[in-house]
Amino acid sequence: MDKIKIAHGSGGQYTYQLINDVFVKHFDNPILKKKDDSAILPRKNLRPVFTTDTHVVKPLFFPGGDIGKLAVTGTLNDLAVMGAHPAWLSCGMIIEEGFAIDDLEKIVISMARTADEENVKIVTGDTKVIEKGSCDGIFINTTGMGHLADSINFGVNQLESGDKILINGNIGEHAAAIITARQNFDIRFKTQSDCACVYSLIEKLTDELENIKIMRDPTRGGLATTLNEFVMEQRVGIKIDEEKIPIREQIKGFCEPLGFDPLYLANEGKFITIVKDNEAQKALSIMKSHDLGQNATILGEVTSQNPGRVILKTTIGSTRVLDMMSGEMLPRIC
Amino acid sequence: MDKIKIAHGSGGQYTYQLINDVFVKHFDNPILKKKDDSAILPRKNLRPVFTTDTHVVKPLFFPGGDIGKLAVTGTLNDLAVMGAHPAWLSCGMIIEEGFAIDDLEKIVISMARTADEENVKIVTGDTKVIEKGSCDGIFINTTGMGHLADSINFGVNQLESGDKILINGNIGEHAAAIITARQNFDIRFKTQSDCACVYSLIEKLTDELENIKIMRDPTRGGLATTLNEFVMEQRVGIKIDEEKIPIREQIKGFCEPLGFDPLYLANEGKFITIVKDNEAQKALSIMKSHDLGQNATILGEVTSQNPGRVILKTTIGSTRVLDMMSGEMLPRIC
Repeated sequence: MDKIKIAHGSGGQYTYQLINDVFVKHFDNPILKKKDDSAILPRKNLRPVFTTDTHVVKPLFFPGGDIGKLAVTGTLNDLAVMGAHPAWLSCGMIIEEGFAIDDLEKIVISMARTADEENVKIVTGDTKVIEKGSCDGIFINTTGMGHLADSINFGVNQLESGDKILINGNIGEHAAAIITARQNFDIRFKTQSDCACVYSLIEKLTDELENIKIMRDPTRGGLATTLNEFVMEQRVGIKIDEEKIPIREQIKGFCEPLGFDPLYLANEGKFITIVKDNEAQKALSIMKSHDLGQNATILGEVTSQNPGRVILKTTIGSTRVLDMMSGEMLPRIC
Repeated sequence: MDKIKIAHGSGGQYTYQLINDVFVKHFDNPILKKKDDSAILPRKNLRPVFTTDTHVVKPLFFPGGDIGKLAVTGTLNDLAVMGAHPAWLSCGMIIEEGFAIDDLEKIVISMARTADEENVKIVTGDTKVIEKGSCDGIFINTTGMGHLADSINFGVNQLESGDKILINGNIGEHAAAIITARQNFDIRFKTQSDCACVYSLIEKLTDELENIKIMRDPTRGGLATTLNEFVMEQRVGIKIDEEKIPIREQIKGFCEPLGFDPLYLANEGKFITIVKDNEAQKALSIMKSHDLGQNATILGEVTSQNPGRVILKTTIGSTRVLDMMSGEMLPRIC
């Protein structure tokens, strides 16, 4: 048997075999092995944090990652930017009839390895198989549960003029990797998705800083859209400095002829942190001493001017308003 | 705007508008309204229970339900049969470009109403939009969280000879409704999916009985497959009595010419309960006094003979082995 059949989604013998031979084998843990309708988790005297993300990225395999790695990192990062410790994942797959079981296993191994590195367990799952032509290969939903310490309470309502805005590294890398993988562009520089779990760096920040106001990962919609989300409906604005935005020259050059604005490109291993002015340098040095933050910068600040707006000071000294993304530059980036 | 555009999945302005005008509007609750990357839930000193289910049912609307109602009941039932109190849901949607926003809103309203009836909140979500032709209308993942009292510990390892097996009503109703909706059969009787949340009945059983061994809902794979799951790899077997299986004559008559065996047809509002012999009559009377259990029966028992096997005593007095479903009778039933 080398391809997925409709019967693999029947709930009967084939499903049982697929679950054992692929999912339980690689996600291997005692809770999943029970194969109950739900996973019973140990109780924990902390606030549960709960998030979901469905992954439809195209192509399924790309430089720096694949849909499996992305399905784990994407959801764990949504927990991490809340300040939560990621603990548990579910995995819901929709698979097209005829999908190669080898590819499925590669994806599952990638999920298992990524979760393992973060000490997260995939404890419950569901598999649907649908007729050839009714979906595009494989779609993966992961839903995550984490735990939030009482000391952590991020919120945009805490933003105040003077707060500093940091990012942990170069933008546009994930989108550029997907575009080149999809289009088979002949380019002279290496693209690789930045796809990574950022919790280990966020944990250091939350351990050592007292005045983190908010964090968020600029995925779909990119840096510009995430900054807009922070100040939308708030009494403060944001001003960022184009010169301080970490981005490779090659990515800039790559975007220009294609008409992409890197400020709106998706990232998968980046997060924006806003901290009180007095902790900005400390935050920066924590980031820079971590693998995932070597190109970190302080790229702007919260302002009392222009409430609800994000203003970019360009390299030539002019200013312009950065809106949320309108329309869509690049579907199926994640 | 009456149709979903690719831009509705961009993460930018269109996504924001869709989330506000459709999801937040109908799923209305303070946690979802925060629109953080994750939902922060109140802590609870009980074991968390966690389950996921993706729904790809075709057609999207059918007698007795729709994909929205099914997406809520399916996942809540997976929590309920663990004996857990369902509390929270996530909602991850994959929507095809061009999908009618009116239909999306009908589906969302149906989800909201069903969750509301069970006092469950939909607190976090994700929406992906993919190109026309890359998926079939809409697929919905819901992941559920519930809480499990310390007094409840179901497990197939507790099964012992003499335990009685109950079901809360007629089998085959969901599958028959889907088949007739899909094929437009001209039939002379009414089909309607049994799609329902069974927690309210399960709560009565767990409150009043002390010796519930295991529960499970016979969805994909039907009654026969679920019974096999109970005894697979166990030192006991199961014997059921065909005469005691609650099923409408019309459903039997409908299945025969189509070659469907109702014992393998999916149900969406049924659950099988195995209780110690001495509580079987009490369990039956609790079921019968509840809306969701009026046709409940005791349909068989756990045996020390035939370990690992499910034996059917037919109406003509012979016996046959019921295997797990092999192959697939009816794709996209849920």
